Amino acid sequence: MNNIECKIIGYVKRPKLSDEEIKDHSLVSELEILPEFSRGFIGIDEFSHIYVVFWMHGITRTSLNAPFSGSPGMPSIGVFATRAPIHPNPIGLSLVEIVGKEDNRIRVKGLDAIDGTPILDVKPYPYWTDSNLQVVTDFKIPNWLSKITNKSK
Amino acid sequence: MNNIECKIIGYVKRPKLSDEEIKDHSLVSELEILPEFSRGFIGIDEFSHIYVVFWMHGITRTSLNAPFSGSPGMPSIGVFATRAPIHPNPIGLSLVEIVGKEDNRIRVKGLDAIDGTPILDVKPYPYWTDSNLQVVTDFKIPNWLSKITNKSK
Repeated sequence: MNNIECKIIGYVKRPKLSDEEIKDHSLVSELEILPEFSRGFIGIDEFSHIYVVFWMHGITRTSLNAPFSGSPGMPSIGVFATRAPIHPNPIGLSLVEIVGKEDNRIRVKGLDAIDGTPILDVKPYPYWTDSNLQVVTDFKIPNWLSKITNKSK
Repeated sequence: MNNIECKIIGYVKRPKLSDEEIKDHSLVSELEILPEFSRGFIGIDEFSHIYVVFWMHGITRTSLNAPFSGSPGMPSIGVFATRAPIHPNPIGLSLVEIVGKEDNRIRVKGLDAIDGTPILDVKPYPYWTDSNLQVVTDFKIPNWLSKITNKSK
């Protein structure tokens, strides 16, 4: 099989931000859905949280090594064990909070994407099977990540 | 901008299963990573859980309406408010548990994909920012979903 071709279903709309501001999850950004897909979003705002799958179009370099590989005190690991945006496919995944919806515009908090980012898919949170919601609260993370986060949930 | 082109980084390997068996999250399946991307997965198994982003190549029909739209007692909503695989891009997203890794083969539990499914990306769980892990346990779901799930977390 060859490469996979994805449709763009919308774009991220937000002010131009500094790298620091993008990490600020209290800021609101907008998913502007293309009119031809708008109907597919009816009822989405009855969820408080959604996953947004997007394409980090600004990424021009990819790597199989984690960006910090070889830094003092950090292990040499692969890029897939990190959230670095330089995966072979620059696919972004954010779990965001819906703060409002007007027609084809969904306002969200916590999106890790810049203005103009193409949106590929949206999925409701949490995952469910026939009769169960799946929220994973019992998990294990690497030591290097425990050191740089507070491990608070 | 035109369509987005994604690389295939590996394939799902598992026995052929019935639809019922695919929903059985105790079954183990395998992510077979292509050799050229294998190095990117060093250290991934220090996480207990990962997101797998895949391409549901068996899906031939898409729709903007939820499959149950119009069924008795169910609302008329869009496909993006559901987990139906018939989104305009048949992108799959599973949060799976790692049960083992040998070279370029990662064994996981909870993958909602059939044998031969192309894998596009893998991301560690949970999400984190500079100093915080993000696990969303406080969320709202639509009434129709509460009715069909037990709401247990």
